[in-house]
Amino acid sequence: MKNFCYKPIGIVHSPFRSREDIDPERNTRSRGFLNITGELEIFKKYEKGLNDISGFSHLIVLFAFHQSPGGRLFSKPPGERSVKGIFATRSPHHPNSIGLTVVKLLKRDANIIRVSGLDMVEGTPVLDIKPYTRKDRKGSIRTGYMAKWKKLGRS
Amino acid sequence: MKNFCYKPIGIVHSPFRSREDIDPERNTRSRGFLNITGELEIFKKYEKGLNDISGFSHLIVLFAFHQSPGGRLFSKPPGERSVKGIFATRSPHHPNSIGLTVVKLLKRDANIIRVSGLDMVEGTPVLDIKPYTRKDRKGSIRTGYMAKWKKLGRS
Repeated sequence: MKNFCYKPIGIVHSPFRSREDIDPERNTRSRGFLNITGELEIFKKYEKGLNDISGFSHLIVLFAFHQSPGGRLFSKPPGERSVKGIFATRSPHHPNSIGLTVVKLLKRDANIIRVSGLDMVEGTPVLDIKPYTRKDRKGSIRTGYMAKWKKLGRS
Repeated sequence: MKNFCYKPIGIVHSPFRSREDIDPERNTRSRGFLNITGELEIFKKYEKGLNDISGFSHLIVLFAFHQSPGGRLFSKPPGERSVKGIFATRSPHHPNSIGLTVVKLLKRDANIIRVSGLDMVEGTPVLDIKPYTRKDRKGSIRTGYMAKWKKLGRS
């Protein structure tokens, strides 16, 4: 099957200057990354594609884990003693190292979107932005080994 | 900025045999695609990466809209009279035509995952699977022009 190639549409500006600044254990805590703010800089040529986006409270950001070579089948999540299948984790090292984070839209100013809930490092390439819709919000969910992680606060 | 290329890890088996079978207006109805069932066939070489996945009720599927050339900045969503900025839509024609659907995991059998909530066409290349976690579920949301779409039933 052929490869699919994508060209970044923007870049993340984050308070995390390097990977080492991002503590994965934070995912197991009630506030998670909710209070981390930063910006999505969408390249000027795509700016018109951001029309109407401010009607949405949350955005799904797809990005390249550009510092990961990907390709792993297992990963040890924060707080776990044993490795888990990679597709049961949010590790950056999936066979295809594409990241996904739902952020809260605070303000759009032309091609700059200020958001909270960032868990990416400065300079992360943005591949796509989608509006977070009712079909992305599931009611009753089971979350496997993550069930013991602290319940998240509201964002 | 460089391109990022990804190799499919599997393929979608869907009751929708062609794009014409998929009615986008369905997104505006209360049941949406919730009762559409099918399978994610993950290629054998990635099967071990599916360990532990059955603990999760829902999965996020990233896929290639392989029948879309992508590249648009505007799209007219179902039921709308005017075009919207592409990033405020779930159109298949985003500059990078990557798709995202949250499905319900019904049963995993080795490298085959039976799911409901499918809105992809038969043969769609799967790029990644992630567990749906509490941080993907947002409480109070605003959904812009989609607010008038019917409230979704529970999945």
